[in-house]
Amino acid sequence: MSRISPLIDRLIDALQVLPGIGIKSATRMAFHLLQRNREGAGTLAGVIVDAVRNVGQCRVCRNLSETESCSICSNVKRDAALLCVVESPSDVVAIESAAGYDGKYFVLHGRLSPIDGVGPADLGLDRLREHVVQTEMREVILATNPTVEGEATAHYISEALAGTGVSVTRIAHGVPVGGELEYIDGRTITHALRGRTSIE
Amino acid sequence: MSRISPLIDRLIDALQVLPGIGIKSATRMAFHLLQRNREGAGTLAGVIVDAVRNVGQCRVCRNLSETESCSICSNVKRDAALLCVVESPSDVVAIESAAGYDGKYFVLHGRLSPIDGVGPADLGLDRLREHVVQTEMREVILATNPTVEGEATAHYISEALAGTGVSVTRIAHGVPVGGELEYIDGRTITHALRGRTSIE
Repeated sequence: MSRISPLIDRLIDALQVLPGIGIKSATRMAFHLLQRNREGAGTLAGVIVDAVRNVGQCRVCRNLSETESCSICSNVKRDAALLCVVESPSDVVAIESAAGYDGKYFVLHGRLSPIDGVGPADLGLDRLREHVVQTEMREVILATNPTVEGEATAHYISEALAGTGVSVTRIAHGVPVGGELEYIDGRTITHALRGRTSIE
Repeated sequence: MSRISPLIDRLIDALQVLPGIGIKSATRMAFHLLQRNREGAGTLAGVIVDAVRNVGQCRVCRNLSETESCSICSNVKRDAALLCVVESPSDVVAIESAAGYDGKYFVLHGRLSPIDGVGPADLGLDRLREHVVQTEMREVILATNPTVEGEATAHYISEALAGTGVSVTRIAHGVPVGGELEYIDGRTITHALRGRTSIE
């Protein structure tokens, strides 16, 4: 890829911090911003600076938030005795957009991964246990991803919460709605069979 | 899509000024920047501000440049008597990355489109003619896109340059290298047949 001017090259390089954006897309984005939307580009720069400076973690649930306590944690209409543990803030977005859940969250920001040096302390598990005990939690739903590491994390948390009296559950694994059996992997089918429910 | 916090929502909205980025990708980008690359995000914001403020058009060729005369126009090693007229700065990047062209460029920033109110003045055609006359140009290659509007623009420019003594040429249209005849549209094949060259 030939390079045009030092400043445009720097813009193209900088745009590649965005996930999934390589040099071709970054070039297209740079030209688009400079040719068609300088005002939007200026706004974007301002909001990035603002967000990087002000977005931290919610003191309670560790979700990303610019206030000390995030909007979900400070919402008194939500069930404070029900907690859903997820790996990342985008999992919170996914569950919120699905509707049907009105409890609180706890964001791990990762999963147990000894090979990457991620241990229980990095996931805030002490704080999680403390939070569960203090708020007299009724149920903790473990919604880590159904990967090897996600399962191990769920298992570890369920053991860490033993003795607190809270009911610990795991989200169901099975055939996705709209999925077709013939295209679904064996492990998922095993889970779906094992987790079968009786039809009322 | 459920919304998390006003500032993160604003970041997600702002990221959607980027071409091809919808709410899902923007959400992913926002979380990525805030969780994993705050430093890169800060750099990106700085470079955007810098580029929006300083990148203008080259006085000579109208390509995007932060200097009065762009690096191609001020490169004395390039053939100043050969000019390639393109629709956009990204066309310059494409031709430069292909290698084999060592003349100068003229960027129209669009194509003639009466329906959108884009006329000859918007494309800088007066300046193009003046430039051709002043620099005693030998050849002008019209490399507008092979669309109806691109063809019309090429035709208009060739007429506008009549009487200046410059040789006006059009890039070849035909079967792309590596393309297969059976998948190529009829108009391209017509062009390829009409533009056939003898094998030496």
